[in-house]
Amino acid sequence: MRIGFIQNHPAYGDREENLRALERALRAAGAPDLWVLPELFAVGYLFGSRAEAARLAEPVPDGPTTQALIRLARGSGSALVAGLAERAPDGRIFNSAVGVDRGGVQAVYRKIHLFDREKEWFDPGDLGFPVVALGGARVGLMICFDWRFPEAARTLALGGAQVIAHPSNLVMPFCQSAMVTRAIENRVFTVTANRIGTERADDGSELTFTGRSRIVAPDGAVLADAPEAVTAVGVVEVNPAQADDKRATARNDVLADRRTEFYRLIAPPDKNH
Amino acid sequence: MRIGFIQNHPAYGDREENLRALERALRAAGAPDLWVLPELFAVGYLFGSRAEAARLAEPVPDGPTTQALIRLARGSGSALVAGLAERAPDGRIFNSAVGVDRGGVQAVYRKIHLFDREKEWFDPGDLGFPVVALGGARVGLMICFDWRFPEAARTLALGGAQVIAHPSNLVMPFCQSAMVTRAIENRVFTVTANRIGTERADDGSELTFTGRSRIVAPDGAVLADAPEAVTAVGVVEVNPAQADDKRATARNDVLADRRTEFYRLIAPPDKNH
Repeated sequence: MRIGFIQNHPAYGDREENLRALERALRAAGAPDLWVLPELFAVGYLFGSRAEAARLAEPVPDGPTTQALIRLARGSGSALVAGLAERAPDGRIFNSAVGVDRGGVQAVYRKIHLFDREKEWFDPGDLGFPVVALGGARVGLMICFDWRFPEAARTLALGGAQVIAHPSNLVMPFCQSAMVTRAIENRVFTVTANRIGTERADDGSELTFTGRSRIVAPDGAVLADAPEAVTAVGVVEVNPAQADDKRATARNDVLADRRTEFYRLIAPPDKNH
Repeated sequence: MRIGFIQNHPAYGDREENLRALERALRAAGAPDLWVLPELFAVGYLFGSRAEAARLAEPVPDGPTTQALIRLARGSGSALVAGLAERAPDGRIFNSAVGVDRGGVQAVYRKIHLFDREKEWFDPGDLGFPVVALGGARVGLMICFDWRFPEAARTLALGGAQVIAHPSNLVMPFCQSAMVTRAIENRVFTVTANRIGTERADDGSELTFTGRSRIVAPDGAVLADAPEAVTAVGVVEVNPAQADDKRATARNDVLADRRTEFYRLIAPPDKNH
């Protein structure tokens, strides 16, 4: 199976141009079994307000981004996981990712751990962490800041994910090396698709995205590693069954060795601090 | 508060010499509020058999290692966390760590995630992950391979640990950088005290320990970092209250933002693979 990431530099708010750029990039890169694209890849990130996020949000599956992804999947045979701003029928706005293939939308994930000002722009995800068949593997979806919570990748691994598709718009420096930890603690493949560039908001604030998209193997090997400040494509051949072997040593299995009777992972709020 | 690690090179099976070496190292290094020593620091690691582990095991608190640690705490004022082979009254053998201060033993931790052949030599820990007051901070204990399971550090952080004391005998290459992830995902200090040297077993197998003991701050800063193949001591000044501030951004708290209703961390065995 071949999996890849696209590290892009979206033009803020210009969905049509960003979708055209994606189509050009895909055409040049061939057709792996699974593409992972960045969070909010078609509209940019620094919305500044909930109203602006709502303006750029769209329904799933009928909105233009999801429809373009399905068209690309049908044309190329590749499955794709990509981030977009989702407008739900009831008016809520989510920072979502969809997983699509020739058959249409196979997964919708609504970001569960919102980062910083996303808490003003979006509603918190309400659908859990999905694991679905995509491109020949069992693929789990999480978005960007979810990396910071080990429970996200763990939940996906326990749900059977062989590959974690991780659309991102990273601005802090720790995630890329942490993804090695996420890969080995769960013995899964991880595909982090990040973006590049700087965005400025009306209030003068700005964010620079850190690139360095990467694919990590269940044994911690970094299979592909993009540069920091240029657009890039990375594609590698992997055997997803490698992620079914959870052995860390001849006598250790990273999931079966969990001793949940000693974990106290749900503490009352007053015990948290 | 000052916290430190001692990275040693124990002589296999020679408890008396290893305790003397510890005493020399401590005398040269001053008296921080908390010392963290390696796993099994006084007897070495590669036992080869359960009988040999039993031979080098000792009761807690009456055995010679715990008594020596208490004597050192009383002489210096420093609290200490250190690993030892524990023989329980019922004959079980544990890979344990004790936390001691002037008042005696404040914590006993029996390793919950046994590594590789430790499963033959030791019984699995049965006491949970302790958090106790030691040296002026709330200190949580875990040992070596526990790093691989994010639930260990998470359980300690949710239990209120400001500092994770992490006696280790590391032989694989991933832990040291993973400790940055463990520190930032929980916003705690971590003190990994590793050993150096190579041990050979009768069957010709050998293990080389990787040194690189380190102290990491809640913001991911590496405050002290030992070399790979020499004995070393590292001491840093920290404010444990820094670990009470769980903010990753102005709007994110790494514990309070957990959305446990979406975590499925306890899967039936048949869902694990």
